Amino acid sequence: MDQTAARPGRRRRPAAPTVQDVAVEAGVSPMTVSRVLSGAAHVRPELRARVEAAVAKLDYHRNENARSLRPGHRSGLVGVTITNIANPYYAELQRGLEEVAARHGRRILVGNSNEDPALERQLVADFLGRRVEGLVVVPSGGPDADHLQPAALGGVPLVLASRAVPGVDVDTVLVDDVRGAREATATLLAEGHRRVAFLGHRLSAFTGQRRLEGFRLAHAQAGVPVVDELVRVGQQDAASAQQALTALLELDDPPTAVFSANNRNTVGAIRAIAARAATGGPPVRLFGFDSFELADLSPVALSVVDHDARELGARAAGLLFERLEGTVPRAPARLVELPVVLREHLRDR
Amino acid sequence: MDQTAARPGRRRRPAAPTVQDVAVEAGVSPMTVSRVLSGAAHVRPELRARVEAAVAKLDYHRNENARSLRPGHRSGLVGVTITNIANPYYAELQRGLEEVAARHGRRILVGNSNEDPALERQLVADFLGRRVEGLVVVPSGGPDADHLQPAALGGVPLVLASRAVPGVDVDTVLVDDVRGAREATATLLAEGHRRVAFLGHRLSAFTGQRRLEGFRLAHAQAGVPVVDELVRVGQQDAASAQQALTALLELDDPPTAVFSANNRNTVGAIRAIAARAATGGPPVRLFGFDSFELADLSPVALSVVDHDARELGARAAGLLFERLEGTVPRAPARLVELPVVLREHLRDR
Repeated sequence: MDQTAARPGRRRRPAAPTVQDVAVEAGVSPMTVSRVLSGAAHVRPELRARVEAAVAKLDYHRNENARSLRPGHRSGLVGVTITNIANPYYAELQRGLEEVAARHGRRILVGNSNEDPALERQLVADFLGRRVEGLVVVPSGGPDADHLQPAALGGVPLVLASRAVPGVDVDTVLVDDVRGAREATATLLAEGHRRVAFLGHRLSAFTGQRRLEGFRLAHAQAGVPVVDELVRVGQQDAASAQQALTALLELDDPPTAVFSANNRNTVGAIRAIAARAATGGPPVRLFGFDSFELADLSPVALSVVDHDARELGARAAGLLFERLEGTVPRAPARLVELPVVLREHLRDR
Repeated sequence: MDQTAARPGRRRRPAAPTVQDVAVEAGVSPMTVSRVLSGAAHVRPELRARVEAAVAKLDYHRNENARSLRPGHRSGLVGVTITNIANPYYAELQRGLEEVAARHGRRILVGNSNEDPALERQLVADFLGRRVEGLVVVPSGGPDADHLQPAALGGVPLVLASRAVPGVDVDTVLVDDVRGAREATATLLAEGHRRVAFLGHRLSAFTGQRRLEGFRLAHAQAGVPVVDELVRVGQQDAASAQQALTALLELDDPPTAVFSANNRNTVGAIRAIAARAATGGPPVRLFGFDSFELADLSPVALSVVDHDARELGARAAGLLFERLEGTVPRAPARLVELPVVLREHLRDR
């Protein structure tokens, strides 16, 4: 125990073991040692075992931080801010990011902004202070985006994921929000619905704007007026979405169909519609943006605009590493829009 | 753009701005600057704004890495390995961890082990190389846990979350697995069920063992023999759990009730039972460990053993920071078992 407690001091001694020491101990090349330490694939298991044994015996710890301070060396860190890890969509996005980062020998620093622009600003400053090599931000969509401008990032590349930020000209990966919302809404109008509710998150969130745009576009193309009293935005969680739709369903002339613009709003809508049905209310048609686990087992008929959050995270990381590894260091900002797939009447599958 | 590209070089010049420069520019104390940079709460908004403006103007980046190399200074990083971020349970756990870490001015490095002991070992070695101050590990439960022994961690404190590791004597936060599984199973037996299936994840996972132990204990206490042919373990995802239960339901003498030992197995069980019901099969009673979103809207009658994953993450971080901040630097390893709550017949609510 005392010995253990003494170790942190010992790690800082000049006599600390080197990669060379580990290589000699393991009887492998220093390259093999660093490939094992960086988690590279394709290292023969027996070699990996010998290196790990030597690392343990010598109590060797590679000092990534020291490496990051030497000119030309990298910190090996990518800073990631997401808006709400409790939303399974963002957990999948993080998973895709981390998998690609790991393949490039990087680790991700993760922070939740909870949709709070001030917290997002702090996270970015904190990550820069930790010398991250790059940033992937799911922007919370505050009024002021100075902290995301290249000038504020000191040359650290940024990729925006899931949402763009007007005026911030950097690599961005989106899903095709407008098309998904337009086609889903068009489906409801084609079924004859004329009072279609819109449940959305904050409009300051770019996806919120784009999905409302698709909703309005479908109405315009069908020559059906949008019923403004049925448009409810600003619901950031399932509970507030449930409240919002419950209120709409209590109108004298309630909506007969609902387009919910993200999975938080869809989950709230399912609860509101199920509660209404339990009291003998008329069925309400629901079409949601984003799929989620058990969507196909929803107790109310449901269609969803599906897309691949894990792929979105992977693509965002891919764009970042193209910048970091010099494949496209000077290319202009790129916009990737991932396709959506409409999955209708999941309950009937 | 060239200017931007030149910044990384500039950041390494000795002439880089200091906290003092930022304080002078902002007209505040250096303490206020560092409190803003560390994301401390209770900084007056106008002061924060002035500091952020000065940081942007001077292009100041606090060098956390350099700080971490000076004796007595901290890296500000906590390494976290979880087994499957796609499981919403672990997303909630990560959220609780990050919230507490942020309150202590730390950031979390997150890695997914995907239940792979070799990957977990690499993640831990990588995190130590990055000079994390502490580790929180959801252990994948491989046969060899040397990499989690204090001797291998060089004095870096470790907290195990959600699962213990036999022989690794460190702070550990669990849910009360045995009691939850025992009471859930006892409920099924008290309802008269005599052929109760068990769906579990890998038994090498500590929680898997404890939950099967609770299942067996309830049978012993009720004087009902466990039907071994109905015990299916090793299902790590919903798809394999659905397969396993579908096979059991096709037996000549199928189970009338199912205890599923984690939410992946419960989701698979719901799909298998719903499919069976769709073909006119008899109802199957389901009691699952872990709750999940929409559990109360499950299309098949469902009860769950509920507990708070976010709280579990927060408690794990709390135990870690007690070690890091010297509150209990020398206390023996502590075991915290969080309570469970049985929520019965969610559909009837």
